[in-house]
Amino acid sequence: MARLGAEEIEERLSRLDGWSRQGEALVREQRSTDFLGSVEFVNRIAPVAEDMGHHPDLAISWDTVTVTITTHSEGGLTDKDFTLAERIDALS
Amino acid sequence: MARLGAEEIEERLSRLDGWSRQGEALVREQRSTDFLGSVEFVNRIAPVAEDMGHHPDLAISWDTVTVTITTHSEGGLTDKDFTLAERIDALS
Repeated sequence: MARLGAEEIEERLSRLDGWSRQGEALVREQRSTDFLGSVEFVNRIAPVAEDMGHHPDLAISWDTVTVTITTHSEGGLTDKDFTLAERIDALS
Repeated sequence: MARLGAEEIEERLSRLDGWSRQGEALVREQRSTDFLGSVEFVNRIAPVAEDMGHHPDLAISWDTVTVTITTHSEGGLTDKDFTLAERIDALS
């Protein structure tokens, strides 16, 4: 799993919905109706993350979940990060 | 719901298990076995938070959930924060 180059990162980022690059991570904020909506969104991400063996950081603050994805072992963004982001997009 | 004074905060904090004060918030890190253990812990907190109408910030990073509690409307720590912390302690 190699780190992606800057050009490929830009290209793949442009195809995602609502994600931004923050340093070596992909970040997206998902708004829900309330706290339980946020917990439900986390529960929908969990099986996807388990299936991929790739786990985002998830921060719940009331009606918002901030999803942060990176490949720690590579110290940067890889194909797996974008695939996880795409699968999370498909949930919402 | 009034902000608590420094002395009462210290006294109540000393009765909690694993919490520290960080600025105007109570913070605890809960380790689990893995990512799904963290998601499960969030799901156990959710009904308690709903029951109290008081919602912590919850940050999942693999096997760790960081729980942050404050009373935003008061800009500081109140009785409700400590009650929520005690009820979260009772879960683990």
